[in-house]
Amino acid sequence: MLRVEREKKLIYDPYQRRGQAGVGSDRAMLSRTLLWLLSPSSPTATVSHKPTDSPAAWKDALSSTTGVPASFELIKTLVYKPKTAKTATPIPVVVITRDSANANSNVIGKRLNLKELRMASEDLLTEFFALDKDSLSPLALNEKTFPKVTTVVDASIASSDVFAVHALSSDSTVFLSGSDIIKYLKSLETEEVKVNEMDFAAQEPAAAPSKAQKEKEDAKIDGAVQIAIGVKKEVDFPTWYTNVLIKADMLDYYSVSGCYILKPWSYSIWEEIQKWFDAEIKELGVQNSYFPMFVSAKVLEREKDHIEGFSAEVAWVTRAGKSELEEHIAIRPTSETVMYPYYAKWIKSHRDLPLKLNQWNSVVRWEFKNPQPFLRTREFLWQEGHTAHLTKPEAEIEVRQILDLYRRVYEELLAVPVVPGIKSEKEKFAGGLYTTTVEGFIPTTGRGIQAGTSHCLGQNFSRPEMFDITVEDPNDPTGQGKIHAWQNSWGLSTRTIGVMVMVHGDNQGLVLPPRVASIQVVIVPCGITVKTTDEQRAEINQACDDLAKSFKKAGIRAKADLRDGYTPGYKFNDWEQKGVPLRLEIGPNDLAKKQTLSVRRDTGAKNPIPLEGLEQAVSTLLQTIQNDMFKRAQDAYYSRLKQVTKWEDLVPTLDAKSLRSSLGVRLRLVKMISRRGVLKRYAEEQADERAPSAGAKSLCIPFDQSMWTPIEPGKTKCPACGKDAKRWTMFGRSY
Amino acid sequence: MLRVEREKKLIYDPYQRRGQAGVGSDRAMLSRTLLWLLSPSSPTATVSHKPTDSPAAWKDALSSTTGVPASFELIKTLVYKPKTAKTATPIPVVVITRDSANANSNVIGKRLNLKELRMASEDLLTEFFALDKDSLSPLALNEKTFPKVTTVVDASIASSDVFAVHALSSDSTVFLSGSDIIKYLKSLETEEVKVNEMDFAAQEPAAAPSKAQKEKEDAKIDGAVQIAIGVKKEVDFPTWYTNVLIKADMLDYYSVSGCYILKPWSYSIWEEIQKWFDAEIKELGVQNSYFPMFVSAKVLEREKDHIEGFSAEVAWVTRAGKSELEEHIAIRPTSETVMYPYYAKWIKSHRDLPLKLNQWNSVVRWEFKNPQPFLRTREFLWQEGHTAHLTKPEAEIEVRQILDLYRRVYEELLAVPVVPGIKSEKEKFAGGLYTTTVEGFIPTTGRGIQAGTSHCLGQNFSRPEMFDITVEDPNDPTGQGKIHAWQNSWGLSTRTIGVMVMVHGDNQGLVLPPRVASIQVVIVPCGITVKTTDEQRAEINQACDDLAKSFKKAGIRAKADLRDGYTPGYKFNDWEQKGVPLRLEIGPNDLAKKQTLSVRRDTGAKNPIPLEGLEQAVSTLLQTIQNDMFKRAQDAYYSRLKQVTKWEDLVPTLDAKSLRSSLGVRLRLVKMISRRGVLKRYAEEQADERAPSAGAKSLCIPFDQSMWTPIEPGKTKCPACGKDAKRWTMFGRSY
Repeated sequence: MLRVEREKKLIYDPYQRRGQAGVGSDRAMLSRTLLWLLSPSSPTATVSHKPTDSPAAWKDALSSTTGVPASFELIKTLVYKPKTAKTATPIPVVVITRDSANANSNVIGKRLNLKELRMASEDLLTEFFALDKDSLSPLALNEKTFPKVTTVVDASIASSDVFAVHALSSDSTVFLSGSDIIKYLKSLETEEVKVNEMDFAAQEPAAAPSKAQKEKEDAKIDGAVQIAIGVKKEVDFPTWYTNVLIKADMLDYYSVSGCYILKPWSYSIWEEIQKWFDAEIKELGVQNSYFPMFVSAKVLEREKDHIEGFSAEVAWVTRAGKSELEEHIAIRPTSETVMYPYYAKWIKSHRDLPLKLNQWNSVVRWEFKNPQPFLRTREFLWQEGHTAHLTKPEAEIEVRQILDLYRRVYEELLAVPVVPGIKSEKEKFAGGLYTTTVEGFIPTTGRGIQAGTSHCLGQNFSRPEMFDITVEDPNDPTGQGKIHAWQNSWGLSTRTIGVMVMVHGDNQGLVLPPRVASIQVVIVPCGITVKTTDEQRAEINQACDDLAKSFKKAGIRAKADLRDGYTPGYKFNDWEQKGVPLRLEIGPNDLAKKQTLSVRRDTGAKNPIPLEGLEQAVSTLLQTIQNDMFKRAQDAYYSRLKQVTKWEDLVPTLDAKSLRSSLGVRLRLVKMISRRGVLKRYAEEQADERAPSAGAKSLCIPFDQSMWTPIEPGKTKCPACGKDAKRWTMFGRSY
Repeated sequence: MLRVEREKKLIYDPYQRRGQAGVGSDRAMLSRTLLWLLSPSSPTATVSHKPTDSPAAWKDALSSTTGVPASFELIKTLVYKPKTAKTATPIPVVVITRDSANANSNVIGKRLNLKELRMASEDLLTEFFALDKDSLSPLALNEKTFPKVTTVVDASIASSDVFAVHALSSDSTVFLSGSDIIKYLKSLETEEVKVNEMDFAAQEPAAAPSKAQKEKEDAKIDGAVQIAIGVKKEVDFPTWYTNVLIKADMLDYYSVSGCYILKPWSYSIWEEIQKWFDAEIKELGVQNSYFPMFVSAKVLEREKDHIEGFSAEVAWVTRAGKSELEEHIAIRPTSETVMYPYYAKWIKSHRDLPLKLNQWNSVVRWEFKNPQPFLRTREFLWQEGHTAHLTKPEAEIEVRQILDLYRRVYEELLAVPVVPGIKSEKEKFAGGLYTTTVEGFIPTTGRGIQAGTSHCLGQNFSRPEMFDITVEDPNDPTGQGKIHAWQNSWGLSTRTIGVMVMVHGDNQGLVLPPRVASIQVVIVPCGITVKTTDEQRAEINQACDDLAKSFKKAGIRAKADLRDGYTPGYKFNDWEQKGVPLRLEIGPNDLAKKQTLSVRRDTGAKNPIPLEGLEQAVSTLLQTIQNDMFKRAQDAYYSRLKQVTKWEDLVPTLDAKSLRSSLGVRLRLVKMISRRGVLKRYAEEQADERAPSAGAKSLCIPFDQSMWTPIEPGKTKCPACGKDAKRWTMFGRSY
C-alpha cells in the first residue's frame, strides 16, 4: 500500500504541480523509469519533504523525515557547458557523483577533450530538462534527454549502498543503490551515446595541483581580512560547523564513514579535559584501569534490557586473518557487560566496597543515522566510570558528585552553560534506575543537547539473575543477610568539543575558551616594511620570542609566530580561524612605546598593554575572556528558556520568533510544569502530528527549580492533565 | 609421508619403549583407536617432544616444537578414587577437562553420588592404565578400561577448537578437536557404562563457596609468613609469572582468549610511563592526536610488504547490528596505513615539515600463538609515534632521541637494563629502512626480549607509488625538484610492565621500582595486643595516618593500612605480594622511641629510622632502592653476556651451565663478532638442527661496542666466514 502511494507521488507530483509540459513529462518515458524502479533490485523508499535549495538543506530535510533509510549519501548532479563556437549548439555535460566527491571540472574536461567547462545556467537546465537545479537528478536523464547530453558518472558510486536522488523535484527523494543508478544510466545508452564512467576517488591524488593552488590561495589572503569560513553560522549551520572544524585544523574526514581524525588542535582540548577530570575523580578515590574492547556475544547479551538499547549498533568481529571465529565477538558499545562479571568475581566481601574504576577509551556504536563530527560518530573517545557501593545513599552522593564535575568541565573549562537535572523514565539509560544529565543548548539551531550523563544503576545489574554482585550484609546480626551492590556508571565523551565549537564559534571560525586552548596567546611581529632593516626585524622577532618564553614561565601557553614569508594579515586570519583567545601584536612603534597591542578573539576588542607587568595583565585578561564567554553563552541560553503554563502555548512557543533559513524552523527550549512523563508523551504526540519536523521532548527536570515561578502546592496545575503540578520540566527539540 | 611416520610413533613408541604388557598394549585395541584417529574428522598432527612432568612443562615443550597447531589448549586428565568400604574394589573416576578449568571434585562427587573423591595414587594409575600420570590422557580409555571406570567429561570442550592430548606418553602429543574427543569417548559406551557429561564452566558461579573459602584463606594467612606465590620462580617460571600477576592484583583473565584486564595496580604503572614519556616527546615538538581504529581493506592492503607482516593477525569487522558491511573493515594492527594517506594530504609544502604526531591507543593483533599477559596479547595498549621530516639526518636524529627515551623508561623508571642497538635486516620492521631497538633480558629463562623499537622508515612509505608524501625541494633553484618525506615510526607498549615483573619479581611476589609504584610506602600499625587500650590503638592509627599525609605533602606516594580485622602479618604479606617498595611499621614501642621500622621489599633489609626528618630519609631510601634494583638487574644481564670468537663455542656457550628444569634448557645471551647477517643465518641453521629447542637469533648490533674487546681491523675475523669482522652482534634465544 505504502509503496504504491509513494510511487504515485513520483508519477504525478513533480509534473502536475509544476504544470510543465517539458521533455520529462512524457508519460511513456516516465513509466519506463518507474518500471525500472519497480524491478526487484530497486529502491527502498520515496519520501516527500520540504522543498530544499542546497545539499545541506536537503540533508537536513531528510534527517527530519520519517521513512528515510538509516544510512545514505546524497547524489550530486552537476551540469556544465563546454566552451564552443558561438554558432554551435553546446552539448551539456551532466556529471553524476556523490555529494562529498570533489569533481574536478578541469580533469573531466581533459578526459572528454572539451574546453573550459563552465557551470550551466538555470535557463539551460530548463531548456534541456524542464527542471531547476534543486530538482535535478540522474532521473532527469531518459530516452529523450540522454542522447542530447554527455553523461559522466562517478564509477565509485557502484560500490556504495544507498543514495538519495531527487525524484524530479526538490521536495521529493527516492533512494537508490549506486549500482542501480549506473544500471539505469546504462539502460539509456545508444549506439552513438554511451555513459562515461570515471573514478573520481582515484582522481583525488591527481588533485596534486592543489599544492600549487594552495600557494595561490596563500597569496590571495595576503594582507586581506575576510570572512574565513565561507558560509555564515546563521545561514547554513551544518556547513558552517564542518567548515570551522576543517579550517581550524580540528579534524579531518576519514575513509571509513562515520569516523573522523582528531587532529592535535582538538585532541589537546580533550587532553585538558582529561587532565582536570582525572585529577578530580582520583580525589574521589576512583582508579583507572583498562578492560578489553572485545566482548563475546554470550556475555554481551546477558543483560537484555540494557543491550536492547545498543544491539542494532554493535560492530562484530567475525574473522581473524583468514580464519572465521567460532564465536563472533562484539566491540564494546559501553562496558557494563564487559566489566560486571569481574565485579561479581572481585567483590566477595563488603570490605571490597566501594569499588570505583574508570577507563579512558574508545567505544564503537555503528549508527546508521547521519554522522556528525564529535556529536555522532561511529567510534568516539570517552571516559566511563563504573562504581559499586554498599548502600544506596553512598551511590547517590557519587552520582551527583560526578554530575557536578561534568557541569564544571562544561562551565569552567569550556565556558559552556549547562542545566543539570534528571532524565524522564523514557529518556533514562536502558537498564539503570535513573539518569542525571547536564543539558546544553545550541542557540543557533535552538536545540538542546545531552552533554554528559551520570547514571544510578540501582541494583538492576547486581541482582542474582543478572551479574550477581552480592556481599554479606555487615549489619545483619544473623550473618545470613545479603546485599546486592548499588552501582553507578557515568560517561563524558569528545561530544564536549563539538558543543563548545557550536556554542562559541563565529563567522571568523573557532573561538576557544582560554582554559582549554593549547595556545592561549599568539604573538605576531608587525609593522615590518621594505624599509625595515635586518637588524630591526631581528630585534622585533627577538622581542616576540622573549615574550613567549616569559609567558611560558608564568604558566601561560603562548606562541610567537615568526614564520617567514607570511604577512601579519595572513597570520591574524590563521589564528583567528583557529580560535586563539588573545593576539598580541608587536611592531617597531610598540617596542618604542614599550607596549603591545592586544586583540581579543571573542570580542575583537583591541587594547594596548604596557610590556611592564605584561604576564599579570594577560593572565587577568585571559580570565576575563573566559568569564565573558561563559556569561554571554549563559545569557543566550537563559534568554531562550520560556515558561509555559498553558498547553496551547507549547508549540507556538517552540516555534516563536522562528527564522526561516536553510536549517528550517528555529527551535526554542521550553520549560513546562509537568507531572513527570505525562506532558512529555503529549508533546511527542503533538510533534508527531507536525512531522516531518523533529518533535520536542523532555530534556530534563532541572535540579534547580528556583529560577522559575514557585509552584503553589494544590494550586499550580499541570496544563496537560490538570492535576497538581510538582516540578518544572525542560522541554525542547534536541540533538 | 609425515602423517604415516607420526602415526607409527603412536603405535610403537610408548609401548615398546616402556616394554610394558599392560592393558593398553593390546594391539587390536590400539589400532581401533588409531583407526578412529585416521577418520576424516580427526587430528591435525602428532608430535614428539621432551618428556614433560607438568602442564607448564608440557606447554613449554610444545611451544618449542615444530608442527604444532597455531592455537590449542591442553587436556587435563585427572583420576580420583572415591571413598569405599575397604573390602570393596574402588571404581576410579576419570575426569577429562581443559587444563584451565576448575574441576571441583566436591561438585563432581555430589553429581555422581560418590563420597570424598581423592586424587588416585600412581599405583592405581599403573594398575588400571599401565601409564604414569604424565602420560595419562583420554586415549588411555579403551574398550577394556572404559567399563572399569567412571568417566566424566567437561561438555564445554565440545565447543572449542583444538586440544593437545598425550599420545599415551608424556613425550608425545596428538591434537584433537573437543568434539572428536567426546565422540571417541562415546564410542566406548556400553549398555551399562555411559560417559558422564558435565559443564564445568557452568559450575564456576556455583563455586561461590570461594567466598567462604576466601575467608578461610584469610584466616590461614593470619600472622604467618609464607611463600606467597605457590611455585618458585626458578622452578616453574610460567606459572610463577601468572601467579604473581594475579596475586599482586595486576591483571585478571578475560572471557575473550588472549585479552586481559589491566587492573589499577598495573594500569597505574602505565600511567607513570605515559606521564613521563608524554612530557618528553612534547618537548621534542610531538603532538598527540587520535586516528580511527578502523581501516578499510583497500587502504590496509596498499603497502604490501608492510602489511604482509600483519595480515595473518588482522581482526575484521564484517557486520554491524544485523547488517553485513559492504566492505569489510580491519581493526588497526598498527597505524601506518591509517595515517599516511592523510600525511600525504596535509603535507603540501616543506613548511608543513616536520610533522610529528603520536597517539596513545590500543591495537589488535589476533595472534594464534599462546598468549602471555603483557608480552603477547591480542589487544594491547601502546603509543605510536609517526613523524615526517624534510631530511634524512633530521629523521635519524629523532630515531635515536626516541630510542634513548625508551631506554630511559626501562632504566630510569622500571629499573630494567636494556641494550640499545640496531636490528639485522631480517629482524627489522617490515617495510622500513632500519629498526633500532632496546633489548631486554630475562635472567630466569635466559631469553632476550625486544623491549621497544624506533624505526627509520626512510622514504619507503612516502614514494609516489606508495603514499606519495612529497614536497618541493626548497633548495632546488629550478623549483622543479621534489623531495619525498623521510619518515619514522616508534612504539612502546604495555609489554614494559611484563618485562619489569619478570626481571624484578621474586618468590614473595611482585617487586616494584619506587619510580612507578602507585604506593611507594605502606605504613602498618603494629604491636597491638589484647592489652592495648582503645586510646593507644587510636594513637597508633593516628600516627600512621599523619605520616601518610606528611609523605603525600612531600611528594611521596604513601598509604596507611588501617584496615580493621586484619593482622599485621596478613598486611605484610599482602603488600609484599603487591611489591610495595618500602614498609614502615609503627607500634607503641616505636612511638615511644620516636622511630619507625623500615623494611625494604627488594632486599628484606630492616632498619629503624627516626621520625624526625623521616620524609627526607625515606625519599633518599626510595632512591637507593631504585638504584640498587637497577644495579642488580644490570649485573645479572652483563654476567650472562659472553664473548664468543670461535664458531664451535657458540652452541656450547648458549647451553653452558644450563640447569635442567621444567622450563627446559636455560639460555644465555651471546655476543659474537659478526658481519651483519652471516653469523645469524648460520646460528639459525645450527639451531634448526637442534630442534625442538628454540633457536638463537641475532638480537641487535649494540651501539656501544666499547664493552667488548676492540676489533682490530684486518686482524679480527668473523668466525663464520673468515672475513674481516666489523662489529660485535648480540645473539640469544628470545621471546
